[in-house]
Amino acid sequence: MSTSPVDIARTASLASRTLKAVSGADRNAALTAVHAALAKSQDAILEANQKDMQAAQKLIDAGKMRQSLAKRLFLSQSKWDGMLEGILDVRDLEDPVGKVTLATKLDDGLDLYRLTCPIGVLLVIFEARPEVIANITALALKSGNAVILKGGKESTNSFSAIAKVVSEALASTAIPPGAVQLVETREDVSALLDQDQYIDLVIPRGGNELVRHIKENTKIPVMGHADGLCAIYVHSDADVEKAAKVVLDAKTDYPAACNAVETLLVHESAATTVLPKIASTLLQAGVSLRCDPVSKAALKSSTLDPAHKLILQEATDQDFDTEFLELTIAVKTVSGLDEAILHINAHSSGHTDAILTESKETAESFMNRVDSAGVFWNCSTRFADGFRYGFGTEVGISTNKIHARGPVGLEGLTIHKYQLRGNGQGASDYGAGKRAYLHQKIENVEI
Amino acid sequence: MSTSPVDIARTASLASRTLKAVSGADRNAALTAVHAALAKSQDAILEANQKDMQAAQKLIDAGKMRQSLAKRLFLSQSKWDGMLEGILDVRDLEDPVGKVTLATKLDDGLDLYRLTCPIGVLLVIFEARPEVIANITALALKSGNAVILKGGKESTNSFSAIAKVVSEALASTAIPPGAVQLVETREDVSALLDQDQYIDLVIPRGGNELVRHIKENTKIPVMGHADGLCAIYVHSDADVEKAAKVVLDAKTDYPAACNAVETLLVHESAATTVLPKIASTLLQAGVSLRCDPVSKAALKSSTLDPAHKLILQEATDQDFDTEFLELTIAVKTVSGLDEAILHINAHSSGHTDAILTESKETAESFMNRVDSAGVFWNCSTRFADGFRYGFGTEVGISTNKIHARGPVGLEGLTIHKYQLRGNGQGASDYGAGKRAYLHQKIENVEI
Repeated sequence: MSTSPVDIARTASLASRTLKAVSGADRNAALTAVHAALAKSQDAILEANQKDMQAAQKLIDAGKMRQSLAKRLFLSQSKWDGMLEGILDVRDLEDPVGKVTLATKLDDGLDLYRLTCPIGVLLVIFEARPEVIANITALALKSGNAVILKGGKESTNSFSAIAKVVSEALASTAIPPGAVQLVETREDVSALLDQDQYIDLVIPRGGNELVRHIKENTKIPVMGHADGLCAIYVHSDADVEKAAKVVLDAKTDYPAACNAVETLLVHESAATTVLPKIASTLLQAGVSLRCDPVSKAALKSSTLDPAHKLILQEATDQDFDTEFLELTIAVKTVSGLDEAILHINAHSSGHTDAILTESKETAESFMNRVDSAGVFWNCSTRFADGFRYGFGTEVGISTNKIHARGPVGLEGLTIHKYQLRGNGQGASDYGAGKRAYLHQKIENVEI
Repeated sequence: MSTSPVDIARTASLASRTLKAVSGADRNAALTAVHAALAKSQDAILEANQKDMQAAQKLIDAGKMRQSLAKRLFLSQSKWDGMLEGILDVRDLEDPVGKVTLATKLDDGLDLYRLTCPIGVLLVIFEARPEVIANITALALKSGNAVILKGGKESTNSFSAIAKVVSEALASTAIPPGAVQLVETREDVSALLDQDQYIDLVIPRGGNELVRHIKENTKIPVMGHADGLCAIYVHSDADVEKAAKVVLDAKTDYPAACNAVETLLVHESAATTVLPKIASTLLQAGVSLRCDPVSKAALKSSTLDPAHKLILQEATDQDFDTEFLELTIAVKTVSGLDEAILHINAHSSGHTDAILTESKETAESFMNRVDSAGVFWNCSTRFADGFRYGFGTEVGISTNKIHARGPVGLEGLTIHKYQLRGNGQGASDYGAGKRAYLHQKIENVEI
């Protein structure tokens, strides 16, 4: 393995040059090989994971680690099976490389093509879940990118064991050595963030703080979602049953997810008609409601169960800027669509926001004017996800405004290049009194 | 006009929210209004330009400005006419906003659409050419983006005069005030680079140094081309006449352009067969040839005109990393395709590189393995240009590896958002034993 971070970055860059010319069939064959090697090494890897678990136990006993983290570290049989299956799933997706996305005849015998191609070298910084390393490796290789991986330090033994198997498996394939490298320390990452001549994209998968820290410390483009402060706006004409069901799902299906709803905005006229049913459904499910004065008053005077009325909480301003990630939701009454949109554009994180309304016109206006990666109508924010969108897998969910936004699949790991195929033409052949450009779309691309 | 940079950025952000919902027809009408207002204000603007020219004259007299810069400052009648025409040209391009780029039926009554939309707020830092401000304004408005403009200080009077007319013209349109703002000092730019909560993309149009400086000083994504160190590789089987013509065009059509060729790589067997004709053509046109020992020896022993042989220069290592931007070219002999690709990937700036060969197979290998935004076969690097590619206009040429690469048209000023249109669905309705996703492509999109 390489030693210094500069060496690692340079090695990755060299590997990426070769990898760019490796065929889709060869990239798929490499994934098959990785899958087989991992399957054969199950015992050794699960043993390494046990070491991580033992170290975690000591930290938990000393009060230095939360049990929830240990749960994520644990490579259970079902996670292991899912990890292996995921590699084959990625392998079987359509090749994202070499797709012609534009074809224009500039002139007879002067044809322009835009083809998708790998970005180059990715630096992916991810959490402590051991199975993620296999998923990222599969995504990187499928898209023809070299990747440098840094996982949470709590899973070091698991990551090393998996990386070793991956490297050995790739040695017998067309993938160049150095296409997948693991670094282990934060210092390595800091040094890698300076290598903008070798690394093309940093993908931090983690919290707000990690993403911000990385953006502050690198010139390399960063693709990461900061957080997920999602809102649902209940319009005056929202269907009561749908509203209760959608909000319940968005809040409780998986409260720790970035696409869970955190803020409920309610049209003032819906505060008495729709909100009580939503509130009672949420409260039944154990959700704490932090209400602004108007919504609280509306619920207090509604037919809501008296016991439920007693446990309504008061919202602070801070609550409308908080990603709770637990069974808590902030509720605010608004005068109508405009105020709802204003609130969302000011407070949401631009991840996913939804409207519940029976009016197509109102929904269109909301979806047009809310500036978020996902704008949903009459469905749960929890659908914001690469698998659910049909991308087969996801690298993450981007709240960036360039390159990729929303759930990012393999397409987000590619860029394009322009091929121009001529027959001796010069630019000075064209212009006033000379040849003119045709700029005709090429219909049946065969290159 | 706004005062502090934070105010400017915040104003732009608010304007961009409104602008995102302005229809294509209204955006086009605004461009018509800007065009008409500028046409009516020709005298005042050209007068302001005269002030810039007078100031420039003083600096030239004092030896503090090059005359070539003054030429760029001068808003001639033909530049003025071109500027006005350019606004209408941009207006008449296809609307880049609201295009459906993906449509998937996740389930009956649960439809996913990906639509293009404006990025938000652009900060464009450009050179001293006064006409550029109108071009950028047109591009920003056409793509629904708010823009903060900073032009070279030498054209301050011209820029202010044009910006004033633009602002007044927009006041009577659907475009919100603050959609186009001009800042005048470097200090303003420095402060704006901190406003990553309001500004979504920085586009520096200028040299290497400017781009690097900006990347080092902002967390905002930067789209700018660093430089254009383009190479042409002449393979052993290159056609002599085509080669001479293409290299001549690439070097002399506009030597100061970023897409002009700077490095000529020649297969060792072509050094005696093809190179002499290329060399004599270039030398006739006044180009200086800086040759490596092998190519120099080959030319010395060729049938090249004795006078030409006398003026051949020796290349230094540095010459192969230099963007000459004048009638100079560095010539190097290579052992074949592999060495040529290795040289290009190590020394080129990733802008545009070309191969001259009669072999399709060799060309394919070159285009596949050279990691540049443009990979050309048997034609001049000078074609790397948004107008020539048929984009109608260009924001610049990007050597970035994400978002946009190569000539960037209106498409590069857009991103997408996902709309999900449902009927009360929750994510918990799907999964094992429950509903399954359909993930069917929607063929005839009507939304």
